Amino acid sequence: MLHSYLSTDDWLITESRFSRARANYYETVFTIGNGRLGTRGSLEEGHQGELSGTFLAGVYDSHDSPVIDLVNAPDWLGLVITVGGVRLDVDTCTVVTHTRALDIRHGILGRTTTFRDTQGRETTLESVRFASMADRRLCALRAEITAVNHDAEIVVESSIEGRRRNLERKPAYPPGTKFPPEIKWEKWAKTNHLTETSRAAADNSIHLGMQTISSGIDIGYSAAVTTSVTPQSRSVREQHARIAEVLTFTPSAGSTIRVDKFVTIATSRDDASVYDTCQEALAQHRTAGFDSSLVDSHAAWDRKWEDCDTEILGDPAATQAMRFNAYQLLIAVNEEDPTVSIGAKSLSGEGYRGHIFWDTEILMLPFFIYTQPDAAKALLRYRYHTLDGARILASKGGFRGARYAWESADSGREECPQWTADGLERLWMGDEELHITADVAYGVLTYVAATGDADFLAEFGAEILFETSRYWADCLTWDRSKGVYELNSVIGPDEFHSHVDNNAFTNVLVRWQLEQVVRIYRELQTQDPATLAAIAEKITLTAREVERWEEIAPQIATTRTNESGVIEQFDGYFDRTHVPITVWDDNNMPRYPEGYHHFNCEDTDLLKQPDVVMLMYLLPDQFTQEAKRANFDYYEARTLHKSSLSPAIHAIMGIEVGDHTRAVQYFTRSAFVDLADNQGNTHEGIHAASAGGTWQAFVAGFGGFRVRNGQPAFSPWLPPEWDEIRFRLRWRGNRLSVSVRHSDMTLQLDGDTGTTETVSVNNTPIHLTAGTPQTVELDLSGRPERAPVGS
Amino acid sequence: MLHSYLSTDDWLITESRFSRARANYYETVFTIGNGRLGTRGSLEEGHQGELSGTFLAGVYDSHDSPVIDLVNAPDWLGLVITVGGVRLDVDTCTVVTHTRALDIRHGILGRTTTFRDTQGRETTLESVRFASMADRRLCALRAEITAVNHDAEIVVESSIEGRRRNLERKPAYPPGTKFPPEIKWEKWAKTNHLTETSRAAADNSIHLGMQTISSGIDIGYSAAVTTSVTPQSRSVREQHARIAEVLTFTPSAGSTIRVDKFVTIATSRDDASVYDTCQEALAQHRTAGFDSSLVDSHAAWDRKWEDCDTEILGDPAATQAMRFNAYQLLIAVNEEDPTVSIGAKSLSGEGYRGHIFWDTEILMLPFFIYTQPDAAKALLRYRYHTLDGARILASKGGFRGARYAWESADSGREECPQWTADGLERLWMGDEELHITADVAYGVLTYVAATGDADFLAEFGAEILFETSRYWADCLTWDRSKGVYELNSVIGPDEFHSHVDNNAFTNVLVRWQLEQVVRIYRELQTQDPATLAAIAEKITLTAREVERWEEIAPQIATTRTNESGVIEQFDGYFDRTHVPITVWDDNNMPRYPEGYHHFNCEDTDLLKQPDVVMLMYLLPDQFTQEAKRANFDYYEARTLHKSSLSPAIHAIMGIEVGDHTRAVQYFTRSAFVDLADNQGNTHEGIHAASAGGTWQAFVAGFGGFRVRNGQPAFSPWLPPEWDEIRFRLRWRGNRLSVSVRHSDMTLQLDGDTGTTETVSVNNTPIHLTAGTPQTVELDLSGRPERAPVGS
Repeated sequence: MLHSYLSTDDWLITESRFSRARANYYETVFTIGNGRLGTRGSLEEGHQGELSGTFLAGVYDSHDSPVIDLVNAPDWLGLVITVGGVRLDVDTCTVVTHTRALDIRHGILGRTTTFRDTQGRETTLESVRFASMADRRLCALRAEITAVNHDAEIVVESSIEGRRRNLERKPAYPPGTKFPPEIKWEKWAKTNHLTETSRAAADNSIHLGMQTISSGIDIGYSAAVTTSVTPQSRSVREQHARIAEVLTFTPSAGSTIRVDKFVTIATSRDDASVYDTCQEALAQHRTAGFDSSLVDSHAAWDRKWEDCDTEILGDPAATQAMRFNAYQLLIAVNEEDPTVSIGAKSLSGEGYRGHIFWDTEILMLPFFIYTQPDAAKALLRYRYHTLDGARILASKGGFRGARYAWESADSGREECPQWTADGLERLWMGDEELHITADVAYGVLTYVAATGDADFLAEFGAEILFETSRYWADCLTWDRSKGVYELNSVIGPDEFHSHVDNNAFTNVLVRWQLEQVVRIYRELQTQDPATLAAIAEKITLTAREVERWEEIAPQIATTRTNESGVIEQFDGYFDRTHVPITVWDDNNMPRYPEGYHHFNCEDTDLLKQPDVVMLMYLLPDQFTQEAKRANFDYYEARTLHKSSLSPAIHAIMGIEVGDHTRAVQYFTRSAFVDLADNQGNTHEGIHAASAGGTWQAFVAGFGGFRVRNGQPAFSPWLPPEWDEIRFRLRWRGNRLSVSVRHSDMTLQLDGDTGTTETVSVNNTPIHLTAGTPQTVELDLSGRPERAPVGS
Repeated sequence: MLHSYLSTDDWLITESRFSRARANYYETVFTIGNGRLGTRGSLEEGHQGELSGTFLAGVYDSHDSPVIDLVNAPDWLGLVITVGGVRLDVDTCTVVTHTRALDIRHGILGRTTTFRDTQGRETTLESVRFASMADRRLCALRAEITAVNHDAEIVVESSIEGRRRNLERKPAYPPGTKFPPEIKWEKWAKTNHLTETSRAAADNSIHLGMQTISSGIDIGYSAAVTTSVTPQSRSVREQHARIAEVLTFTPSAGSTIRVDKFVTIATSRDDASVYDTCQEALAQHRTAGFDSSLVDSHAAWDRKWEDCDTEILGDPAATQAMRFNAYQLLIAVNEEDPTVSIGAKSLSGEGYRGHIFWDTEILMLPFFIYTQPDAAKALLRYRYHTLDGARILASKGGFRGARYAWESADSGREECPQWTADGLERLWMGDEELHITADVAYGVLTYVAATGDADFLAEFGAEILFETSRYWADCLTWDRSKGVYELNSVIGPDEFHSHVDNNAFTNVLVRWQLEQVVRIYRELQTQDPATLAAIAEKITLTAREVERWEEIAPQIATTRTNESGVIEQFDGYFDRTHVPITVWDDNNMPRYPEGYHHFNCEDTDLLKQPDVVMLMYLLPDQFTQEAKRANFDYYEARTLHKSSLSPAIHAIMGIEVGDHTRAVQYFTRSAFVDLADNQGNTHEGIHAASAGGTWQAFVAGFGGFRVRNGQPAFSPWLPPEWDEIRFRLRWRGNRLSVSVRHSDMTLQLDGDTGTTETVSVNNTPIHLTAGTPQTVELDLSGRPERAPVGS
């Protein structure tokens, strides 16, 4: 019955039976959220081995854990039903039927489970739940309980549970382990980040106040339950860090009880009084009712999809995968909160502890820039919010300006651990993976180019650009003998090689950044001198300092280029031992060559993920088509894709250089990384970077979208199996709708009457006027497939 | 009110307020048990950070843990009370008053706690609990709940909880750890050993069946509740691996509700149908009632104390400590079960995972031999029960006969891990600590000498003695050049030194064993040739093989003796670096010298615990008084007492050689190891070896009791502060009551009329006749105090 709340099948991700082995996987996949919070798709009543969690964006705490954690916050879901004293759950009862469906169009998770106890009593539990996209304080759950064949007493316990723990993976050494030890990671220890501050019950509502221990953030949850049938009794059950309402019913056989649970959540990050905020919001939604609150959320969801839906005619599974990835990005971002960003696993799990990496700016941000620019702006404002942390990090190295942390959380401090959890391996990323700072600048520049958002630039962007350029100018080392500026002992995107000198990706991106920032400075000088003067005064920036950047940029060291045009990834890379990749797995992904693992790839030419190839995607105008082809062929044959960021970039560049077969394989790998769990770790959280990369593979790969010379440019290619692809882009405040078929493509600009934009299709300029679609003929057969390499 | 169940204060160990920091300590100290099971003194309602546990003797399981565990079995205690919906526990409510008292005379734990909730409602919970010593299947709990100032609804949930976990300590490496890593041990992971097999509820009783996963032992618990007031409602609450009865009351303010919970426990180790056994026993005790079951248990306790009570007139604290240690030994042993022994932490905690060490035979067994010979016999029959395991262990080394495991559990297999839990340090005890096999033989020989139990010898003892001697004969190595038999690469009792050759303790004890076993063989030849023939046929033992033992014994290598008469602990010990001990702690115990820890004591002359000194205690007739003094002086100055086994032995030998000041310090250290928690790890379980050592320090130290030339011999000494000590011994079926004062001592033999025994007091023979006490004058001043060494 509750399934009437869900969209049509093409928007549903479904589960058709309960499997303990798959339970943690579905918890991740069925996450609901609204960017302010994410709640994993755990069963309301819990079960043994569950990895449930609600995560509140920006609520980090370092108490009791070696590294700061995104806190596993109080659980609002809890709804435990007992029938004649027997708890309905998968541990206690037999599951007769169990189906769930996640409606990714409106962010609703629906469920129908029929339990049978040892006395043969069958009870069906249906539920729908959502985290409101309209009022991000609200989570709501409707449950319908049907006593199929009995009239036993039904007790419903609706709880707020504050006794939560984050998981800490610990090494376990099996007996008889030799040194160096073989490590097994089978056990979870648990860390505590929360302490109770208040409990209250009044007017048929309950409230629990908790506080994070080291970061001191107040978290309040209020909850209320309304029912279709008046309960026989209603009471409150209290224990430390937990409060629950208990309702008793004595239904007749075959009858159904409906229970609506409203939960409002506030934190001291947003509200002075979390209690008052919770109670006010609760009163409001309880009065409005479940359906009204859900309709508001629907409307907010519909507005989001208007700009970001994608379709592949002829491939419903791929369409669903595209939408699933977009859904995961939409529930991870909150355009209203400029103090948070998206962690590597979004708000869907504890993997990477909620830390923020370059994944956000390079892999996810383009989706937001081109479909949800307000959200993109909020994400970049997070980097402004943490600019002081970046300044401190630069100054720790003895440099001026701002250096972004490889792993960032609430303050911008470096949160990347220096050692693996077993203490045996040194992690150098926090020390050496400098490119993150240029990646942030790249994100700012890309956003400004796409939106023309001068206010953002003036208020936030320019300061980030200047401070990071200042850092580069200080940390680049002048080599007198060679007459170049160098970056030595770094790690590039390919993390298999540490302590390398002059990583091509980093050096070229830094040079490009300095050039762009000098250009921005000059533009501001002429267009908005007052703003520039204010920023310059704030950070004591002089024209001379900017001239220095201009002088430095062309003198940044370049690496060698071989006779085929392959750019050396870093000084001496060509001299590393060549290890041929000879074995591929069922997903057409290479395996580690025999005897090699990540820790002994240092001396080889094997790559974890694209480095030079990634650079050529980010800066398309800087390299010739021949260079792109030569580098793709060379490096693709050496890349193990041990990062979920890797396949999407290879899909894009594979299409660009004509390696279509591989490109489609890489796209599939990227699009289904979580739906097919092809990395095997989806239970730890969604691969958010891959979700963003998948959108880019679609739009920049098949759509061939780039920004060239400041204009949208398209050079599409479609797999023969697909009939048409459709996507939409936001460009300078307007909407550009694009559809591509094998024979032609249609472009339509939506905006104020008279608005025009010039785009290019396969290097031919097309002039668009708002409201008037244009169809351009294509000859995709003119882009022949090249023979795949290495398979 | 319930305190009327408790004995007078001199038998009570008390707690006067609730302290979270001390909670786990009291859980150990307040353990109740009956040798078949032990239940830690946790609060009935639980709290955060509790380390509760019920342990069933012999119920081991290795599923999900690196080393086999004594299983943390289902919890029978659970009694959760909610008042007006608020859970009464230390986390949820304010504790107004809290006192507990363990009655060590009758094994009853009493409690009175008054809770106040946030609404000012005060409720007092009193309880007494016991594990019956008369019917070891029964645990019972009486609770009285008083609504002090309110008439809120009271709900009592009485549960059986099968979802238990054993703790697994995991290494945690703090961030920035250098290699080799600094390890912190702050986290606990948890391992699962149990799976549910059945749940049932009928006739106001509940039943839960669980099974250990790898060892397949069925465990059943049945429980029933009777009340003083008819509850308003009564229902059963079921969930996976848990079942509970829920009773609701609406008492008037000031009134008291009494709840009696009976729990019966059966396992497939004892009973074919655990369900039937549980239900029958439950019906029987429920009919008899709480008081009746308690009276039966009292009577069984009184019988035990008749033989083992000790008193120190003039020192009530020391008397209490003596009784506390005896209590812990009494609740650890079950004379009815010859398939289990006592683990290093008895049934009081998870420390050492319930494994059985030499602690049992050398430190604990004398208490049982001389006060509870039936229990001693059961403990030695455990070694017979595991003789096949010992045979397998010997054969793994390529030897015939039987070699006992350093750590033994259910089967006699070696359970000692080869690596520390962090995987960084190799543990050699299981490989090299061979003396355990001679220690078991020593236990058998001591028991037979004290009891004259020819039946035990014939049925079990001789086979152990012959098989272990056979092992020694095979594993001793003949050194042709020196003309001696050697034991090379071993660890002696002093575990600071591994891979040593010819440990004096081991070699001398093996020589002694072979001599004694040859004697036993010869005696059986003349006294019981049929039995000997049967054993010899069973194990194919020939007279020639026994002659070989006789030939080997005198040829076993001895170590050097220096000019002062100090026996070298092992070959080359005298050449190890001398490290003076210069710092003592508040308990007068030496600290590690600066820069030394256990892992770098190998090259020094520092000892963990007595080795040669222990040998001289075990074989008093083999060494002169001068040798004992020289060795005590030499080794005591080098011993760090990093084992709780160490102080008791130093107390005994200190008295023997006249170092009275130190001896008293060592006795105090040993007697209060758990009451004062002076090792800091009592929360992991009782130091059972120290409890046994304390009894020996009392009887063999102050009482000066030894067996010399086959007769009890006394050479007492009393500290000036003490007026009199009293103890009792069982000797060859009779009871010998001993009291010592400064001026004289009294000995009384109890037994059949006409029974006589000859004992000696300070080398003078005394002829005792049953029923006639004899008082002998003493001149304790004739045993002058020697100047203490090293302080």
